[in-house]
Amino acid sequence: MDREQMLEALCAVRSGEMAPEAALRLFAQAPYEDIGYAKIDHHRGLRNGSGEVIYGAGKTAEQISGIVGRMIAAGGENILITRMDADKAAAVARVAPLFYDPMSRVGIANRVERPLVGSVVVASGGTSDLAVSEEAALTAEALGSRVTRLYDVGVAGLHRLLSHLAELQSARAVVAVAGMEGALASVVGGLVDCPVIAVPTSVGYGASFGGLSALLSMLNACASGISVVNIDNGFGAGFLANRINRMKGIEA
Amino acid sequence: MDREQMLEALCAVRSGEMAPEAALRLFAQAPYEDIGYAKIDHHRGLRNGSGEVIYGAGKTAEQISGIVGRMIAAGGENILITRMDADKAAAVARVAPLFYDPMSRVGIANRVERPLVGSVVVASGGTSDLAVSEEAALTAEALGSRVTRLYDVGVAGLHRLLSHLAELQSARAVVAVAGMEGALASVVGGLVDCPVIAVPTSVGYGASFGGLSALLSMLNACASGISVVNIDNGFGAGFLANRINRMKGIEA
Amino acid sequence: MDREQMLEALCAVRSGEMAPEAALRLFAQAPYEDIGYAKIDHHRGLRNGSGEVIYGAGKTAEQISGIVGRMIAAGGENILITRMDADKAAAVARVAPLFYDPMSRVGIANRVERPLVGSVVVASGGTSDLAVSEEAALTAEALGSRVTRLYDVGVAGLHRLLSHLAELQSARAVVAVAGMEGALASVVGGLVDCPVIAVPTSVGYGASFGGLSALLSMLNACASGISVVNIDNGFGAGFLANRINRMKGIEA
Amino acid sequence: MDREQMLEALCAVRSGEMAPEAALRLFAQAPYEDIGYAKIDHHRGLRNGSGEVIYGAGKTAEQISGIVGRMIAAGGENILITRMDADKAAAVARVAPLFYDPMSRVGIANRVERPLVGSVVVASGGTSDLAVSEEAALTAEALGSRVTRLYDVGVAGLHRLLSHLAELQSARAVVAVAGMEGALASVVGGLVDCPVIAVPTSVGYGASFGGLSALLSMLNACASGISVVNIDNGFGAGFLANRINRMKGIEA
Amino acid sequence: MDREQMLEALCAVRSGEMAPEAALRLFAQAPYEDIGYAKIDHHRGLRNGSGEVIYGAGKTAEQISGIVGRMIAAGGENILITRMDADKAAAVARVAPLFYDPMSRVGIANRVERPLVGSVVVASGGTSDLAVSEEAALTAEALGSRVTRLYDVGVAGLHRLLSHLAELQSARAVVAVAGMEGALASVVGGLVDCPVIAVPTSVGYGASFGGLSALLSMLNACASGISVVNIDNGFGAGFLANRINRMKGIEA
Amino acid sequence: MDREQMLEALCAVRSGEMAPEAALRLFAQAPYEDIGYAKIDHHRGLRNGSGEVIYGAGKTAEQISGIVGRMIAAGGENILITRMDADKAAAVARVAPLFYDPMSRVGIANRVERPLVGSVVVASGGTSDLAVSEEAALTAEALGSRVTRLYDVGVAGLHRLLSHLAELQSARAVVAVAGMEGALASVVGGLVDCPVIAVPTSVGYGASFGGLSALLSMLNACASGISVVNIDNGFGAGFLANRINRMKGIEA
Amino acid sequence: MDREQMLEALCAVRSGEMAPEAALRLFAQAPYEDIGYAKIDHHRGLRNGSGEVIYGAGKTAEQISGIVGRMIAAGGENILITRMDADKAAAVARVAPLFYDPMSRVGIANRVERPLVGSVVVASGGTSDLAVSEEAALTAEALGSRVTRLYDVGVAGLHRLLSHLAELQSARAVVAVAGMEGALASVVGGLVDCPVIAVPTSVGYGASFGGLSALLSMLNACASGISVVNIDNGFGAGFLANRINRMKGIEA
Amino acid sequence: MDREQMLEALCAVRSGEMAPEAALRLFAQAPYEDIGYAKIDHHRGLRNGSGEVIYGAGKTAEQISGIVGRMIAAGGENILITRMDADKAAAVARVAPLFYDPMSRVGIANRVERPLVGSVVVASGGTSDLAVSEEAALTAEALGSRVTRLYDVGVAGLHRLLSHLAELQSARAVVAVAGMEGALASVVGGLVDCPVIAVPTSVGYGASFGGLSALLSMLNACASGISVVNIDNGFGAGFLANRINRMKGIEA
Repeated sequence: MDREQMLEALCAVRSGEMAPEAALRLFAQAPYEDIGYAKIDHHRGLRNGSGEVIYGAGKTAEQISGIVGRMIAAGGENILITRMDADKAAAVARVAPLFYDPMSRVGIANRVERPLVGSVVVASGGTSDLAVSEEAALTAEALGSRVTRLYDVGVAGLHRLLSHLAELQSARAVVAVAGMEGALASVVGGLVDCPVIAVPTSVGYGASFGGLSALLSMLNACASGISVVNIDNGFGAGFLANRINRMKGIEA
Repeated sequence: MDREQMLEALCAVRSGEMAPEAALRLFAQAPYEDIGYAKIDHHRGLRNGSGEVIYGAGKTAEQISGIVGRMIAAGGENILITRMDADKAAAVARVAPLFYDPMSRVGIANRVERPLVGSVVVASGGTSDLAVSEEAALTAEALGSRVTRLYDVGVAGLHRLLSHLAELQSARAVVAVAGMEGALASVVGGLVDCPVIAVPTSVGYGASFGGLSALLSMLNACASGISVVNIDNGFGAGFLANRINRMKGIEA
Repeated sequence: MDREQMLEALCAVRSGEMAPEAALRLFAQAPYEDIGYAKIDHHRGLRNGSGEVIYGAGKTAEQISGIVGRMIAAGGENILITRMDADKAAAVARVAPLFYDPMSRVGIANRVERPLVGSVVVASGGTSDLAVSEEAALTAEALGSRVTRLYDVGVAGLHRLLSHLAELQSARAVVAVAGMEGALASVVGGLVDCPVIAVPTSVGYGASFGGLSALLSMLNACASGISVVNIDNGFGAGFLANRINRMKGIEA
Repeated sequence: MDREQMLEALCAVRSGEMAPEAALRLFAQAPYEDIGYAKIDHHRGLRNGSGEVIYGAGKTAEQISGIVGRMIAAGGENILITRMDADKAAAVARVAPLFYDPMSRVGIANRVERPLVGSVVVASGGTSDLAVSEEAALTAEALGSRVTRLYDVGVAGLHRLLSHLAELQSARAVVAVAGMEGALASVVGGLVDCPVIAVPTSVGYGASFGGLSALLSMLNACASGISVVNIDNGFGAGFLANRINRMKGIEA
Repeated sequence: MDREQMLEALCAVRSGEMAPEAALRLFAQAPYEDIGYAKIDHHRGLRNGSGEVIYGAGKTAEQISGIVGRMIAAGGENILITRMDADKAAAVARVAPLFYDPMSRVGIANRVERPLVGSVVVASGGTSDLAVSEEAALTAEALGSRVTRLYDVGVAGLHRLLSHLAELQSARAVVAVAGMEGALASVVGGLVDCPVIAVPTSVGYGASFGGLSALLSMLNACASGISVVNIDNGFGAGFLANRINRMKGIEA
Repeated sequence: MDREQMLEALCAVRSGEMAPEAALRLFAQAPYEDIGYAKIDHHRGLRNGSGEVIYGAGKTAEQISGIVGRMIAAGGENILITRMDADKAAAVARVAPLFYDPMSRVGIANRVERPLVGSVVVASGGTSDLAVSEEAALTAEALGSRVTRLYDVGVAGLHRLLSHLAELQSARAVVAVAGMEGALASVVGGLVDCPVIAVPTSVGYGASFGGLSALLSMLNACASGISVVNIDNGFGAGFLANRINRMKGIEA
Repeated sequence: MDREQMLEALCAVRSGEMAPEAALRLFAQAPYEDIGYAKIDHHRGLRNGSGEVIYGAGKTAEQISGIVGRMIAAGGENILITRMDADKAAAVARVAPLFYDPMSRVGIANRVERPLVGSVVVASGGTSDLAVSEEAALTAEALGSRVTRLYDVGVAGLHRLLSHLAELQSARAVVAVAGMEGALASVVGGLVDCPVIAVPTSVGYGASFGGLSALLSMLNACASGISVVNIDNGFGAGFLANRINRMKGIEA
Repeated sequence: MDREQMLEALCAVRSGEMAPEAALRLFAQAPYEDIGYAKIDHHRGLRNGSGEVIYGAGKTAEQISGIVGRMIAAGGENILITRMDADKAAAVARVAPLFYDPMSRVGIANRVERPLVGSVVVASGGTSDLAVSEEAALTAEALGSRVTRLYDVGVAGLHRLLSHLAELQSARAVVAVAGMEGALASVVGGLVDCPVIAVPTSVGYGASFGGLSALLSMLNACASGISVVNIDNGFGAGFLANRINRMKGIEA
């Protein structure tokens, strides 16, 4: 409920069109639908610039299907479901048209074609970072961004990365995905002049400590213009990259 | 040295205007000036979208003065110096016109007026976060962004934050600065639809562990569109906020 | 054995009704029953204000059944069993009437109806915190408190929480359950004037580190009146909430 | 602004006594006073059951004096200031009548006598925990609770603790302060049937890691009815103990 | 090879009974038997006061059987095997007479009766610490100590522990086994005047972090005379308790 | 108060020599003296096998002097004071005869000659571990043990250690003090057959993390018969070494 | 692409043999083959002194087989594959001749005999470190080094290690593999005068924390000439040992 | 004492030239000089390939001067003293000719000219890493290696590093010094084919945690041929680099 709607309601109260009690109920009324195990927020798209996203990890197939069903009934399209195992995806596919990528475990229900705009680059260090990278890429695409994938461009073979300099430098936002020492973010950050979103991954062994090593490394990146999301949070990076990519210019 | 310059040099070699050995030297030649204790990168502004920034913490007053002198000689303006103690600032002020803010320890040498554009909000949780908040705000301003400061709006008194909802929601980028539990980032992230850059601060006691608590909290923020910079890294947040704020729209 | 009983015994010794050796044995005698793998404390209810609770995680189905059997034989009612897997519950159900909630893995043996009093609110941030939340709610109910459940009211969607302000503000104790960044405790703490018991949960991924992130965040909560129990310790929170809820007023 | 006040304002709008724009301003208006470096919340006492408390650590003597002055001007009494060094206290004492305890660094401005009620016990393990213990005790007293101090009753000399059993068992809330291994909370928790608030202290050496050892120990306390506040947070424990101590009974 | 043997060999060299090369080989020759995957140290009993112990966790059933076979062939008795799963025990039982305790996973091959001497007490906090406690108790017994088991005497029910005061105070060494907050070691340490060996266990949940909480707590125990072994290291504690228990008096 | 005294008192009650109320007071009466800032436990020597020890770190010179004065008045000799800075020692020396070692900051008030018995070896790795080593050695000596010091015998120069093999192997208890990698405990543990008490020290730099590295290393020592005390806890090690050294043989 | 090739290409441009555009493509062209899920770097052998190595952990059997196939097609021999499970090895064996060691999970495809040179010693502490030790040994052998294995020479039985002193002291590089307390590296480091590469292993229990204890211990090793690789990184140690072993002397 | 000397002594015993007791003393005799607070190892140069090095941090000026004096008396040259503060250096300079570098706090007593051989490169990321870098460089030079310094070549400005490719690629050993995210080691490791020794530095702020971030990053470096020394351990890196640099080729 935004400022304007509030003013409108208050005017309706003054004019007698609305009883004070009704206004009170309206103000207190949450713009979500309560289906027992979740409160679906149909208005989040309006407030936050994108539709509801379903975090699949802690939910049963029935819960996900139920939420998807309600959202489609409310007109939802391109409904993103993250961290959804294949068997849950199979269950959801029975109640709604579903695109599903098993590697990143990303699903998109009621997917509709729409033009992709701008330029997001998702760069990653090694084969083992592919799942997180795809989560980022599919998220950004589902939200409307054009995505270029630069995989296996880790810093131990610098020439692989440098041979894609042109693509990197034409991006409006770069997502840098890396596990182990996470140096990719620093190196990329020194090469581009757009925001870089670093995603540490839990891939690795030994003293990588489930992504902690890459996380600390990325937080300490010397280049400017880099920020970090949570370990393995490909979705968060893709979401933010899309938000940045789709920014409008400052109005004169 | 970009693709175009490289092609140009190769053409000069073909035409005989340039010897192959000279081209080789040119390719290998770094676009920086070596003054012994530092290599000043005059071209970074071109490559990275902003001028050189001097991280003052590990440098002597003489080193900072020296670098500033060279940069001004090379035409530099609005040269940002972070983490500079007051006594170093006094020394620098002797060799160059200097704006200096003692709380955030930010200096700006050869400051020139220029129009500030767009809208960056810097919000912070408590009085003790002011130094980091100002580092972020002064950085963004030095780089050309208009900044609104919302200080002392911590989540324990939610109404203080909510009373500034309009300012928050009209921002193009929000910097959320908080120590202790760092909840400000989550709450702000749920209220706006622009990128939110969270800065954990080392303010606090007990189990705040020098900012670790706020850092982890912010990395785990449930709202989307949030990313995190290093503990107390007000500069990094301000730099990134400016970069996002000043983005142009996607060209048709 | 309390002060009064001790005095009584000493008087019996003086009067010759009890031999000194007998008194010595009495003082040394523990008010528990030793059944080999456990020492059941039938008097704890008297000393501590509530009956024995069985922590099911480290015990076999046989051990739990045995303890329950002895406690019922000693007149026990509403015997709470926490962290009990479904198969153990099935075994226990064969020796005693058992209520069992598979999500929170809470069992209540020999459950009897009794009036619920006062008002405890259990609030939680997301669908994935339900198990811990229910452990808290069922515990408080089993011990005699009336419980209101406010689930899925995380701070990323502040309006969901604020729409339940009245219920929150009429509580005598609030249990705030949250994983990830744990900001719920801070926000709730700023809205109510009763004790808030924060329960960090191990739900999450990345740098949530099995609940550490939420734990640190809650310990650092800026609002006053908040204390914290162990990660996932829904039982402890429900137990304490009941104790606070059922407090009597100060006698004049 | 509570539900009732909101309804009242809406009625005033309907009756024409108040313009919608005025109501809107009213709703948006925060009930605090902005003095530049802080926003003083005069209504917190109403909302939260106690007056504003000033956390002195991150503030200058001038800032503290300024806030105290405004609060006294607004009728404030028994204004608690924590973590205030002696020199700051001297400065504050120049602008307001001030009680100051140098060990705990607690100050109480504009202190007025009032009857202390109920019973809070503050128990601590060793001489070195006195500062934190006193912060808790003075806080609870400033807020109106009668406090009994049991200091130097660590578990290595169990008889010291047991000789105070009667005082412990008659408390309505116990604050258990301990550094090092923090076992005091567990032992006390097994002896009483009121809420126990554990405060880990940073006192210690070696692997006590600034209080982490005691913090973890207390979180893992086996006894029920224990919750934990932040390391060295005597204020938080005293605040919560007072809140619990002063609870009214459930109305029939 | 001790000093005396060395001197003896040197004399044999001088007398010509032994060639220098032979002595050199002798000095260099390790008093162990190399069976490929392990070097069995038949002399360790002489050097270290007890026979070889086999750590079963990292070895295959075949390896354990092989080592046991060689040791029995070399006259070994009461050969202790720790951390041996039931299936490995079954395999070993085929090649040697074997006592096996499935809870603690301790095996004793070629067990022979011998008088147990002195007094070791193994005390533990809860049912879940039984496995580690039994590892300690069986180890001390296998090495010749008389052991008294005091299980389920955690500090939350202090009277359980105090009712065994006489047994505790007559011990020559106490092993205190506890998980969670590990307070048992502190309390026991304050009650006895013999060495106390504390064993933290990994039992627990939440912020017990696999025994770290109990470990830190025990290291910080306030009572004197306590030392700590590794988490879950019942064997190490039993071994050391036996060594202390069997000490001879100082010779006049 | 031990079992025998308790029985005696009960007999006095039966015989009418003592009123029950008096016995009750006696039982509840703690055998310590309360001097405000501390409770001095004159009986600890009886219960625990050694006199009271004063931990000087958290106490003022006045407090230490006061406690020492009371203990000497009660007949105390060889009163050990640890972690006492030189200026506090000077103050104490004014009220009691005091031996003071500035390196280890150990003081012994009212020191009296007595025969030292048995054999404790204190071995340390490097020059920088001397302070902690001396704390251990002086403690063991003050309590009556003969001590041999083997300093600067770190494992990087194995021959230094091996040249003292005879002294090591004739010890009844060894204290192994080491910082950095703490390997000394493991190596010593493999060479002797008496209990080894390992003391990690906070000496070191880089990833020694204030002694954590040595602590973990020692806890994981492969040799048997090793236990560990807290970082820098020379006192605890010396105390325990003395206790072990002075053990009597098992009575037939 | 090295300096010489670059100069050569530039000369070809000058002479007109190569168009500038072609040179540009050449410079930008990465010397790897892109097969979709990986970019194979055929030239790494030239640049880095050894062939490509395949890290098998994060790859499917199909991916490994595919890469191996391409590398053999490009003339690759002695292709090392690390962290490859037995079932993946079986799949790879169908497309290429494969040596496979199940314990260390090392595979060598298209293995060819070649003379082994120099001397690398791989020493390890216990039976449980064998897998990592073999990974190191097989890696060094596959790259051309002669390897001596000294297994089960932990510091708790120092004589085992000392009996191999001659082999240790004739090595050109030593790999010291150890879990638990990691003291082997320190002791070995004090005995030899060649580089020592320490490999912490995750073997252990309790406070070994997945190898962290050994890692910290090794980083803090007192002896000089020691460096450390990641936990369990037998490959890295073997690779580096081979590189050091095969160094040529300094040219006059 | 090596194998040959041992055999020689044994032969002397056989021939009667040496008494067995004398040989025993010889074997047991440590080749060091004991000066009370330290045991100086004059033979370490023979055993370990370099002279004694004095770690100055934990020693007094008198101790350092004393050790230096003895070493010079024993013919020592180029005696390296690390971590020596300026005032200690001044004291040492009074007893011996001393080179001293205040930034790295490295001293070299009795410095003599000698030819430097081979090629060690010390590369570092930023101005703030200079102290550690110089410690490494001066150490390697003092031990006889020719050193090239490449400072301020951090990965955020990749061209600075790449412009020194030739120097890097002609090194026989590279020391890579970096704080913050430590990415320099990875990038350098991918560019050279000699051993790379990574030195994490404690320079940085926020989540660099005293060098932990760089340490973990370097341990997880993706490139092969990299090993790591302790945080800030410039000496260790320089020592090892010299050892590798000066390796002889394998003899045919």
